[in-house]
Amino acid sequence: MPGNSFGQSFRITTFGESHGPALGVVIDGCPPLLDLSEDDIQPEMDRRRPGQSAVTTARKEDDVVHILSGVFEGKTTGMPIAIVIHNEDQRSRDYSDIKDKFRPGHADFTYLAKYGIRDYRGGGRASARETVARVAAGAVAKKLLSADGVGVLGYTVQVGDICMPEMGAADITLETIEANPVRCPDQPTALRMEELMARVRKEGDSVGGAAVITAVGCPAGLGEPVFDKLKADLAKALLSVPAVVGFEYGVGFKAAGMRGIEFNDSFLVEDGVLSTRDNRAGGILGGISTGEMLNMRVALKPTSSIPTEQNTIDVNSEPTTIKTKGRHDPCLVPRFIPIGEAMVALVLADHLLRWRQIR
Amino acid sequence: MPGNSFGQSFRITTFGESHGPALGVVIDGCPPLLDLSEDDIQPEMDRRRPGQSAVTTARKEDDVVHILSGVFEGKTTGMPIAIVIHNEDQRSRDYSDIKDKFRPGHADFTYLAKYGIRDYRGGGRASARETVARVAAGAVAKKLLSADGVGVLGYTVQVGDICMPEMGAADITLETIEANPVRCPDQPTALRMEELMARVRKEGDSVGGAAVITAVGCPAGLGEPVFDKLKADLAKALLSVPAVVGFEYGVGFKAAGMRGIEFNDSFLVEDGVLSTRDNRAGGILGGISTGEMLNMRVALKPTSSIPTEQNTIDVNSEPTTIKTKGRHDPCLVPRFIPIGEAMVALVLADHLLRWRQIR
Amino acid sequence: MPGNSFGQSFRITTFGESHGPALGVVIDGCPPLLDLSEDDIQPEMDRRRPGQSAVTTARKEDDVVHILSGVFEGKTTGMPIAIVIHNEDQRSRDYSDIKDKFRPGHADFTYLAKYGIRDYRGGGRASARETVARVAAGAVAKKLLSADGVGVLGYTVQVGDICMPEMGAADITLETIEANPVRCPDQPTALRMEELMARVRKEGDSVGGAAVITAVGCPAGLGEPVFDKLKADLAKALLSVPAVVGFEYGVGFKAAGMRGIEFNDSFLVEDGVLSTRDNRAGGILGGISTGEMLNMRVALKPTSSIPTEQNTIDVNSEPTTIKTKGRHDPCLVPRFIPIGEAMVALVLADHLLRWRQIR
Amino acid sequence: MPGNSFGQSFRITTFGESHGPALGVVIDGCPPLLDLSEDDIQPEMDRRRPGQSAVTTARKEDDVVHILSGVFEGKTTGMPIAIVIHNEDQRSRDYSDIKDKFRPGHADFTYLAKYGIRDYRGGGRASARETVARVAAGAVAKKLLSADGVGVLGYTVQVGDICMPEMGAADITLETIEANPVRCPDQPTALRMEELMARVRKEGDSVGGAAVITAVGCPAGLGEPVFDKLKADLAKALLSVPAVVGFEYGVGFKAAGMRGIEFNDSFLVEDGVLSTRDNRAGGILGGISTGEMLNMRVALKPTSSIPTEQNTIDVNSEPTTIKTKGRHDPCLVPRFIPIGEAMVALVLADHLLRWRQIR
Repeated sequence: MPGNSFGQSFRITTFGESHGPALGVVIDGCPPLLDLSEDDIQPEMDRRRPGQSAVTTARKEDDVVHILSGVFEGKTTGMPIAIVIHNEDQRSRDYSDIKDKFRPGHADFTYLAKYGIRDYRGGGRASARETVARVAAGAVAKKLLSADGVGVLGYTVQVGDICMPEMGAADITLETIEANPVRCPDQPTALRMEELMARVRKEGDSVGGAAVITAVGCPAGLGEPVFDKLKADLAKALLSVPAVVGFEYGVGFKAAGMRGIEFNDSFLVEDGVLSTRDNRAGGILGGISTGEMLNMRVALKPTSSIPTEQNTIDVNSEPTTIKTKGRHDPCLVPRFIPIGEAMVALVLADHLLRWRQIR
Repeated sequence: MPGNSFGQSFRITTFGESHGPALGVVIDGCPPLLDLSEDDIQPEMDRRRPGQSAVTTARKEDDVVHILSGVFEGKTTGMPIAIVIHNEDQRSRDYSDIKDKFRPGHADFTYLAKYGIRDYRGGGRASARETVARVAAGAVAKKLLSADGVGVLGYTVQVGDICMPEMGAADITLETIEANPVRCPDQPTALRMEELMARVRKEGDSVGGAAVITAVGCPAGLGEPVFDKLKADLAKALLSVPAVVGFEYGVGFKAAGMRGIEFNDSFLVEDGVLSTRDNRAGGILGGISTGEMLNMRVALKPTSSIPTEQNTIDVNSEPTTIKTKGRHDPCLVPRFIPIGEAMVALVLADHLLRWRQIR
Repeated sequence: MPGNSFGQSFRITTFGESHGPALGVVIDGCPPLLDLSEDDIQPEMDRRRPGQSAVTTARKEDDVVHILSGVFEGKTTGMPIAIVIHNEDQRSRDYSDIKDKFRPGHADFTYLAKYGIRDYRGGGRASARETVARVAAGAVAKKLLSADGVGVLGYTVQVGDICMPEMGAADITLETIEANPVRCPDQPTALRMEELMARVRKEGDSVGGAAVITAVGCPAGLGEPVFDKLKADLAKALLSVPAVVGFEYGVGFKAAGMRGIEFNDSFLVEDGVLSTRDNRAGGILGGISTGEMLNMRVALKPTSSIPTEQNTIDVNSEPTTIKTKGRHDPCLVPRFIPIGEAMVALVLADHLLRWRQIR
Repeated sequence: MPGNSFGQSFRITTFGESHGPALGVVIDGCPPLLDLSEDDIQPEMDRRRPGQSAVTTARKEDDVVHILSGVFEGKTTGMPIAIVIHNEDQRSRDYSDIKDKFRPGHADFTYLAKYGIRDYRGGGRASARETVARVAAGAVAKKLLSADGVGVLGYTVQVGDICMPEMGAADITLETIEANPVRCPDQPTALRMEELMARVRKEGDSVGGAAVITAVGCPAGLGEPVFDKLKADLAKALLSVPAVVGFEYGVGFKAAGMRGIEFNDSFLVEDGVLSTRDNRAGGILGGISTGEMLNMRVALKPTSSIPTEQNTIDVNSEPTTIKTKGRHDPCLVPRFIPIGEAMVALVLADHLLRWRQIR
């Protein structure tokens, strides 16, 4: 099968290029009788949208969503839900400076190697603009999950060498996260991250970072061994996002340095609900959710497009240089947050429905 | 769809429990006219097998493979290849000590929560024994890949706090890796790792670790955007293995702390072959292979089964204690190596075939 | 998985309701570098469109196609191709007469039983209007096939009790078929069919019929045993179309009354090309194409919507009557022809690409 | 994807060749806690087995089933269920007479054209022996369905020119069907069919036929528009069986000659249960089950293997003749009955589980 669909039971198929007429998604498998309108989706689009602050790119993308099918009188009907976002600004530009060059860190070379053709306008489908369709679908998944009491929340934990300190779960809320443009719930850290991003931009540079995505309210039982384990599908979902270069859940890579006695979590029961002492397994055992909070962390590489001259080659293998024009985010993590949440929501919605098959 | 199949074009379906009559795999989609016999598969089974050294468990599992279909006169026919491994030792045992308890770090609780029943004999399908089927299928994938000049190689880079130092690629060979039971190509490091594992075992404890898996000879062009990117499918493949808790490729999590100017790789052409200065992207750009060496790293948690008393609860939610009997590997990484290689080989074989659809 | 996708390698996902904002399709897996524009698709849409003659409904549906993605500078890029057809005429109507009643022969009852909600405007997604998306996708499949020398052609062979006599393949061409509104290549028969359809319409009635779909130029080798045999996928494709109630290929149901000696086809070789004496197997042996002409026949039931009062029940299980307003085709076969061709083209394009995986 | 899997939620993957070591199936997605043992499966195997009477082949195939996984203490666990049937009789034979020839009506030529290799021993995977795996899986599907009150029943309605007369549903029972070796519930007709088959065999010939498969107890709501309609999946399932050349449901091909007023079925409600006057739609409207009895009919071609000399060609395209040795059924329909039932049961089990995803 081709690669533009994701999920099995809550299945999305996305389409569209950065500078084509439109991007969009078809969601197949959404249960009927869910209240849904554009108003449920637009706020998530707006969170992803650039130009929201000094630390994100100033490009104008209104990203207005249109539902074309699958909703009748305010409710889903069980039919496929098509959502389209028209590209506002498709005026013809001069691409002569990038048309024949391979931008370092970008997919220009690999797309040409694979397909023998590439849409060089703004990166075509390899552009991060592709993620608008994911966020639109994720908003529907979130709506479905919230009806089951499941909430997904992401935040920035690292920008370059600035890391967020440990913080109590109670202080990590949508409000503390959205209180600053960096989307870090610790306000002093957020300020320092923002300063670093501003400095990096001024230097014509970019910087990497990391995000945490959590989910609360997941029932015990999500995940399909042995290949579609919850941890495996979450890893795939997040690694499928542009710029994501690493994934871990629970204790993650730190577990490599630990002893079993130290790492192993005892099971406890409080008020009839099972949990573990420290949730070191990030809410997943044997690839199946335990009912505890899911938590995972991903790393993002520094933005590849930087307004500084870099060496590269052209399509004829001749050495040349390139310098990206236009404004790009100095760090991708703040705008990744709604995208990462969308991907996690899509995995959870899918597994909620998949589990129903055998119950 | 249920979760026991992996891959799209080179598609495997596995079955079997730790203490059932047999485990096995059906490979559907293997091209015809590939030379294949049990002799191609058995050596990989033997690498995975326990009891090979003082640092791995002494359990006896002969793991003899039988090909039941899909091969005629020494060649694959394009028909599904079924491979079965009978469990030698299925004598009835006394499971009364674990039958009603949830072992910490294991899937006992989550399987019961999901399915309402669990095969408690040796962990049933949640046992790492399940991976024999993966290794058998991976051996066929490796055979297919080697015909295309692709080689997959894994090795241990961390056991607890002992990490392998940087090492030239030329010194990392199947010979240097298999020269010691730890499967670390740096022999002095291997010795220290071995000592740590012996000590940890004596203490009734276990230890985590990390492995690197590489692939050479991959053509540029593998990976199916935007969801089945090569990095996404590799992450899923490796995270689907028991005990794996983290994945990164190329620079990985370190990229979070880096600047764009420092991270970005220039494209170069040498002898007509494109490469990048430092292959920081681990051989993948835009989710598609560049033709350079693929490299990825995974973290494994410490073995959950330890012969030390741990607190837990039973199926009636009553507190109790548990102490695992039997011999278990003090560190899972050495025996993970052939499993990790198998999973990477399965992904690459699948993507090699998937790419053919559009060429 | 949900049911709105078809095909494995050339995979389509359709969406849209009869009276919603738009219908459309996403084609994923179309190879790159195929010349494609709206001009390749629109003629097929026009063939499907109603209002073309006295024997088809006079409703106005312009069915203008818009390609939203996957095409760059006149060529496919390997990215998903989204095609949208906006519904021209969505003005609010009075549905009070059908909103609460189950129309005989329609899906009103079953959709409500399954989904708990139904879009009663014009049948929603159960309307034959859904097939516009199939025809659009089929046009792309036909373009791909024609590059491989494969042509698909359908025609009407029965309307009510009027059957087309045996006819030489040379006389069955796009021209003789499109020479009359019934799409029967035998002109005298076409005239009689047309008269019958006019009479039936006048009587407030409808009539069933049958169509043959053929394909020439198919290489030997298409079809994936043992479940995705070519005959099985063709049957599924055609039975998925509204009103189709039977499928046969080659000799079909007549084979039930035949002897083996009479039925069995000898293999012949002429000019190095294998064929059979009579192609009684309709170009398929063992579920795989032989390289001969494919031929299959389908039956369509009479149009369910008739302007004559029928007994039925309402959503409260109370007896009532219903009489369909608006103009409907007295026989569905003429407009089915481009739809049937589209479905066969989709199956063949899919199997052409699937076969490449193992070559 | 390759073609040896069927179903989405109740998904089977089959393997094995006629004269290889074993055939089998892996069922993935069977819900847990279903009572299951070999005793549930063996009777269906025995119904399919040859050598049961004078009208079926006398070959000896014991077809003993072994469950290798997925069942624990007599209950399914939700894990994949692998079932293996060993081929008893694999002694080396002399295949020189068919090794290089294409048997008319068989898949010898097409397999070689597609795969470049073929297992000529008894037809390899193209042999009808492949269906043992379908029947084994179908027995599990039947077990699952019976827990939901769904029963599947098939019978012979035509052998050559002998057709079963109309018969009341009450007289069509497993008992009346299994009362004779032809599996026709009308005993006088069965006798005539048996005589015809004996005569045909004596003449070194074979004969075609037709079967009806019904299902009772299906809830309204099965089927996934617009491509995985119940009628489409049933057609695919049955056409995937060797020798099946046509499919119709409800009134079927006769509908082509009917008028709408005559064909259309009124809805009725009796005792709170909806039905139609005549169930002309075979229990399916809009591709979704109505809750009424499902009924469909398939045609089978005459057995291709006949002990009479036929003209053909060899692999070098030279004309030659062939005469099939060994004993083959003179008519395939009686042994098709359990196979057809199995395929229908697999579709219904799959759709029962698929529907649960959106409820």
